[in-house]
Amino acid sequence: MATLADVAALAGYNKSTVSRALTRPEMVAPETLTRILTAADQLGYVLNRTASQLARGRTGLAAFVVPTLENAFFAPIIGGAQAHAAASDLHLTVTVAPLTSASEVAALSRLASQVDGLILAAPRGDDTHVRAIGAVKPVVLVDREIPGLPSVVADTATAIGAVVSGLAARGHRRIAYLGGPNGSWQDPGRAAAALSAASRAGAEVSVHGPFPATFAAGVASAEEVLAAGATAVVPYATALALGLMLALRGRGVHVPDDVVVSAEATVTDALGAPGIPAIDVDGESLGRAAMDLLTSGGQDTLRLPVRVTWSG
Amino acid sequence: MATLADVAALAGYNKSTVSRALTRPEMVAPETLTRILTAADQLGYVLNRTASQLARGRTGLAAFVVPTLENAFFAPIIGGAQAHAAASDLHLTVTVAPLTSASEVAALSRLASQVDGLILAAPRGDDTHVRAIGAVKPVVLVDREIPGLPSVVADTATAIGAVVSGLAARGHRRIAYLGGPNGSWQDPGRAAAALSAASRAGAEVSVHGPFPATFAAGVASAEEVLAAGATAVVPYATALALGLMLALRGRGVHVPDDVVVSAEATVTDALGAPGIPAIDVDGESLGRAAMDLLTSGGQDTLRLPVRVTWSG
Repeated sequence: MATLADVAALAGYNKSTVSRALTRPEMVAPETLTRILTAADQLGYVLNRTASQLARGRTGLAAFVVPTLENAFFAPIIGGAQAHAAASDLHLTVTVAPLTSASEVAALSRLASQVDGLILAAPRGDDTHVRAIGAVKPVVLVDREIPGLPSVVADTATAIGAVVSGLAARGHRRIAYLGGPNGSWQDPGRAAAALSAASRAGAEVSVHGPFPATFAAGVASAEEVLAAGATAVVPYATALALGLMLALRGRGVHVPDDVVVSAEATVTDALGAPGIPAIDVDGESLGRAAMDLLTSGGQDTLRLPVRVTWSG
Repeated sequence: MATLADVAALAGYNKSTVSRALTRPEMVAPETLTRILTAADQLGYVLNRTASQLARGRTGLAAFVVPTLENAFFAPIIGGAQAHAAASDLHLTVTVAPLTSASEVAALSRLASQVDGLILAAPRGDDTHVRAIGAVKPVVLVDREIPGLPSVVADTATAIGAVVSGLAARGHRRIAYLGGPNGSWQDPGRAAAALSAASRAGAEVSVHGPFPATFAAGVASAEEVLAAGATAVVPYATALALGLMLALRGRGVHVPDDVVVSAEATVTDALGAPGIPAIDVDGESLGRAAMDLLTSGGQDTLRLPVRVTWSG
């Protein structure tokens, strides 16, 4: 098993600097911290968190880290985590960091030193970046899996497969999947599920994107969707669906008579027409399950089912 | 000027407890903290922040506090504040707290003790609740004004007045304003601006709400809007506008031919029809200005203009 001395040798710092970086990361320079965390990660060095935690005392704070606040998808997940945190006498704080750069990892490590644990929702950076945070404090992942780290994932891939099968059964032969964003761990699995469900049903799926989860991106996707000749569209996010719906109507294309667009049930219900698929993630349960793993120290990998309904 | 002893006498604690509550609020029970902060507030006791700050050192953290993450309105404001914070070598953390209860104030006070300063966006609680946080650390308000605290406000009231005037000039006689949420400081000013602009133009405004800033609330508002006989609707939030638009279309009411609904320009542009008013708050500037006040220690009350455009 790797020792502190091994980490110091690999990183090129003395042992006291390494010790300080691992126990009081806010005291060392960001570049130093990154090098030391990378070395610790390469060697599989695990800090004895419980002991250092006891020495420093509980902070009473947990952090929920999101890649963006643009996507309303995270709001109920944060709400669920917050409700569960309050029950454990923890205050939840939210930080925006996609974790795609070393400087972001260093900044988040400093924050990590000031909380009891972190939930990382859909981080877009490499496994190494994410593991570096896990070396500082206990982490639980949401909508991402990395071997050795506990996680809770909404099974949207299976739901999207079911939606594509259902659309094909209702006669749609050309279906567009709007994917993204860049670096999303969920996205390749969703696209694969859409493609395999279509091929089983003798329909075609065109994969578009990556798109950010914004209304504007949905508007911008309209041209591509029409060019693909799709009669049904499965966007990965609600904001994208709403932008597309309004842009299609603005071009005289009737939704859902000419083109069916899937969304959350609150949206598809509002349209008052039958045969529209709705995909609903129970964000609150996702958030609660993640906070439960964090406070219990559970190491599970949970996959929560996602509800698919059809307007009728 | 009130002394520490005055605060101790009014709150019913000894001086050392009061001192601890004001300098290390995480060390005292929430109820104790609330009583001491309330007493300090009543007496106008101002903690010498700079001195205690120096004694404890900078944390390198600032907090952005929002009443909810449901409203996408806050995302660009947080983005602007975050960009400015990074330039000042501060890490920005986001916390959800409407500040409507004493227990929330106590929890936020604990967080406040661990950051260098806070931006409170649209807090919904009483002035006393908000001032209690200001007694712990420097605060800047966004979309709320409280005498003696620095603030940055988007002048949506003036924008809504201009939209109502423009709708009346385009022949709309019955206009619905969808207001909210409960406890919003901005809302009464917006409703008043809509009513006075309508009365100047000989049109009528019906005021509806309070509504949360959600798509579902917009869907639910459709019946009320139709019952009011409105040909134009001014919702206070984009999600509300989108829900209303889709629900109206679902009932066979054409938007914008039968009913015009104002929204952000990205939404009104997507509809591809003329004569729709768009209200756009420059959230990033709002966030930057707030963070600038926080880092500079400015005590100003800033009112930023809000852009109104008409699709053409």
